[in-house]
Amino acid sequence: MTRIAIDPARPVGRLDRKVFGGFVEHLGRCIYGGLYEAGSPLADDRGFRKDVLGLLRELRLGVLRWPGGNFVSNYHWADGIGPVHSRPRRPELAWGGEESNRFGTDEYLAYCAELGTEPYICLNMGTGTLADALAWVEYCNSAGATYWASRRRENGRAEPWRVTYWGLGNEMYGDWQVGAFTAEEYVREATRWARAIRMLDPQAKLVSCGMNGWNEWDRVVIEGMASMVDYHSLHIYTGSDDYWTNVLQPHQAERAIRCTRALIERAAYRQKLAAPPRIAYDEWNVWYRQMTGALEERYTFADALAVGTYLNIFVRNCDWVQMANLAQTVTAARPGDARTLPDVETAQLEEGSEHPKDGMVAIRLPPRSFTVIEAAMTDR
Amino acid sequence: MTRIAIDPARPVGRLDRKVFGGFVEHLGRCIYGGLYEAGSPLADDRGFRKDVLGLLRELRLGVLRWPGGNFVSNYHWADGIGPVHSRPRRPELAWGGEESNRFGTDEYLAYCAELGTEPYICLNMGTGTLADALAWVEYCNSAGATYWASRRRENGRAEPWRVTYWGLGNEMYGDWQVGAFTAEEYVREATRWARAIRMLDPQAKLVSCGMNGWNEWDRVVIEGMASMVDYHSLHIYTGSDDYWTNVLQPHQAERAIRCTRALIERAAYRQKLAAPPRIAYDEWNVWYRQMTGALEERYTFADALAVGTYLNIFVRNCDWVQMANLAQTVTAARPGDARTLPDVETAQLEEGSEHPKDGMVAIRLPPRSFTVIEAAMTDR
Amino acid sequence: MTRIAIDPARPVGRLDRKVFGGFVEHLGRCIYGGLYEAGSPLADDRGFRKDVLGLLRELRLGVLRWPGGNFVSNYHWADGIGPVHSRPRRPELAWGGEESNRFGTDEYLAYCAELGTEPYICLNMGTGTLADALAWVEYCNSAGATYWASRRRENGRAEPWRVTYWGLGNEMYGDWQVGAFTAEEYVREATRWARAIRMLDPQAKLVSCGMNGWNEWDRVVIEGMASMVDYHSLHIYTGSDDYWTNVLQPHQAERAIRCTRALIERAAYRQKLAAPPRIAYDEWNVWYRQMTGALEERYTFADALAVGTYLNIFVRNCDWVQMANLAQTVTAARPGDARTLPDVETAQLEEGSEHPKDGMVAIRLPPRSFTVIEAAMTDR
Repeated sequence: MTRIAIDPARPVGRLDRKVFGGFVEHLGRCIYGGLYEAGSPLADDRGFRKDVLGLLRELRLGVLRWPGGNFVSNYHWADGIGPVHSRPRRPELAWGGEESNRFGTDEYLAYCAELGTEPYICLNMGTGTLADALAWVEYCNSAGATYWASRRRENGRAEPWRVTYWGLGNEMYGDWQVGAFTAEEYVREATRWARAIRMLDPQAKLVSCGMNGWNEWDRVVIEGMASMVDYHSLHIYTGSDDYWTNVLQPHQAERAIRCTRALIERAAYRQKLAAPPRIAYDEWNVWYRQMTGALEERYTFADALAVGTYLNIFVRNCDWVQMANLAQTVTAARPGDARTLPDVETAQLEEGSEHPKDGMVAIRLPPRSFTVIEAAMTDR
Repeated sequence: MTRIAIDPARPVGRLDRKVFGGFVEHLGRCIYGGLYEAGSPLADDRGFRKDVLGLLRELRLGVLRWPGGNFVSNYHWADGIGPVHSRPRRPELAWGGEESNRFGTDEYLAYCAELGTEPYICLNMGTGTLADALAWVEYCNSAGATYWASRRRENGRAEPWRVTYWGLGNEMYGDWQVGAFTAEEYVREATRWARAIRMLDPQAKLVSCGMNGWNEWDRVVIEGMASMVDYHSLHIYTGSDDYWTNVLQPHQAERAIRCTRALIERAAYRQKLAAPPRIAYDEWNVWYRQMTGALEERYTFADALAVGTYLNIFVRNCDWVQMANLAQTVTAARPGDARTLPDVETAQLEEGSEHPKDGMVAIRLPPRSFTVIEAAMTDR
Repeated sequence: MTRIAIDPARPVGRLDRKVFGGFVEHLGRCIYGGLYEAGSPLADDRGFRKDVLGLLRELRLGVLRWPGGNFVSNYHWADGIGPVHSRPRRPELAWGGEESNRFGTDEYLAYCAELGTEPYICLNMGTGTLADALAWVEYCNSAGATYWASRRRENGRAEPWRVTYWGLGNEMYGDWQVGAFTAEEYVREATRWARAIRMLDPQAKLVSCGMNGWNEWDRVVIEGMASMVDYHSLHIYTGSDDYWTNVLQPHQAERAIRCTRALIERAAYRQKLAAPPRIAYDEWNVWYRQMTGALEERYTFADALAVGTYLNIFVRNCDWVQMANLAQTVTAARPGDARTLPDVETAQLEEGSEHPKDGMVAIRLPPRSFTVIEAAMTDR
């Protein structure tokens, strides 16, 4: 007989709402034609699509990462502020195409405010400089009378936006990444950024750029950055045309968490860290059919099981995983066809279909945060 | 008896027209007062000297490298576009003096178009950033609606200029070079540049910065960059007051080609490269009398023999040497005194003089490209 | 009996007036509300406080270092030129607060000119680029028709300011420093800066960034930079609530000088340097009570003895120590209460008080430069 013993006296930890987080990158129809479509009858006067906004509001996302992903490594944030018609149009290196910069920092932060979700901005460590990054933090968060804070006020926002979460680059290890580093180079550069950003904004929570969790990159970065960051990030994408492979691959995430946790604990012990960083799984999803910028996967029931597996893993490791961001929260949003991936609990697709129509993929989340309790399953 | 066996069935390779290439740097009277002299009665309304243009047109250069040389390592290309009167004047670090920026990217590319020669731009890896380099490529080559492409259109050029050849810095190993690197630093930085430039313009052909061909710098750079570039560059300058030394020193070039070829083949084998880079001898000449920015050497018959030796070496190694650029194509051009160095075939100076008058030095080339055939000379 | 033998035939060296140098950083009330207070009845029409200027004029400082210190590592000099009302206000990372940029390069250099003291500018190697540094040197020193020299003329200064002394960063080893380096990174980067600055201005005297004199950082930096700089800098701050500790700690400076001298001599011997760098003790003082940006220490008699000890050490090592800069020359200057620390010779505080009122601290110096003679003290 299989018994499940649940002991309420042994809580694993407090589940952080940011584990049910999203990620929206300037790619495909995620931003433009997805959550933002100025001039569309579906959009409000800020250009935010009301149908998409409505669905995202239901999700009650704990955090929303932006603007990339690979996109960010050649994104110059100052292009995306001020009067829309005078914003420069730029070539987009990560996914091809052009970036109009109509959706920029103020639009993103207004969107987060609208959703009641925490913003999380990933910094450009590819072609961006530390001076650029400092100006971005100042623009968002300074209550002072300084230049960039004044620019923010001119652009219509008197109060600081109070962005707490800042990512120190995206996948800086990868040769697909503009300005990729070796792990040692990354540690040196990210150390400079972390120190200076904290000098400017002591409230900032920083995220170091990790890989898969068990790589040498992760070891070097964790050893080098653990004393300076609040999170170490991991990314995972799985997927297969084979049903069971597709469903079960997400278990890699648990292995990754164990490895990363061990590396962090080792660094914490050796460096005597009172508050070692936690894990931010800041990109995760099934992704294998269209590895392009369009990203308009059509999801199946197997994918939903995979997503459920992922979320279960994050939840039962909630003492270490304190942020996770579904990539991408908005994959495409045809007029009148935006829809969501169903609840984790039920793990069933709307209309019972294996092939939901092309639409927005998202997760409907439980209404409140809760404490996760260890459950031991034994056969005896 | 000495026999020369020529076997048409054993071609060495197709001679690339770019082997008969030129190089014009912002130094001495090469650009200003050489090919460009706005306001001069000798110049057309674009400021191009008609006599110099006429001589260069005869040469039918396969490629023309610009703007340096050492000059480029503190050249900020955006200074040299737009209305001439609003271009900033800058200190010139490599050769002293000041740079007026009157001859910039659009002037250079119009000049190449006029000559029907391929442009080849060397990027500033000294004080220039990757972001600057990407903007330069965009300005020249983008057909899109992006910022720098739009600036190009405003400056009078609707179509992309289609610059194919881009050099990743000039002599970045040398302590005379603004921003010199170690070989390892160069590989890291040039790798970042190469990847990002290819993302922006997949047609770009890139040239890694080599030294003399047998140096440790060349080994490290070839191993590090061979998978990412189309050419590895070499530079050679020879010269002596001793007649035979002057004539025979160019044979070093053949040794350099053998060494470089071996290093490239080794890298290609170890890294399984389908299309390993070829050699661009992108600076070569006799140069020893005036090692200054003026560069106004007065050439002798021995120099002409040396030049003939160089060209013969490049031609018989045409399977590996696929670009070569005479430095400098225009050394000085006094009004009414511009002249050319005679044909390679005849290797005789005009007027039979050992001391041609101060004038433009250039090479008159055979009319069409041709196939080089191996010729074995045997004594028996 | 103790005898003191003074042999005028054995001079130690010529004492450089720059040993009696000052340092003013943008911190606390040193600049704003100290030597500069536009609009104050105490200030002249340039905003220079006349009482402070009068006291500093008496000191006949040989050199005055500016603008930091830690401040400089995020200081963008171009913010501080041109019309005062259009200068951007910036966050200040080193000490907190905001920088109004009202006191900038032209104000500082006019101040030095007013005092008849040599300016010594420390460059921003934190968030500043080599291109920024070159522009700064051009702005100050170019007699040409180039962009930044023209900007200086527009801002009211026709002649070059002729700044001879330039510091290659401040305390670039420290984790409190924006953009801190490892010693090896510093050598690479500072080498690039040194070469390029000398190309632009061959008269420039450069100062490498040292630590305490006996650290591994000093060894690596001296070995790497000795051929390229004129000074290696050291910093020392001492202080204790224990009287004798406070008075005697400055003897560390002599040890530091011996170590640094040995490192420089070793580098000079191995690298065959004709003119090895000398030591610039470009920050020194008693400082332990208020380690804050305010820096408004109230000095005691013990502090005065310590200062005397420091100066004696610099003087008797004048063959090696050729610059030293009291940090900070102006610590605070309440209206009507600016005052000076008394002569080295007498080492007594004005009014005989152990606790002079909050005021400007400075040293009254002997009227002319002089030759230091070795004095041997023997017991027999």
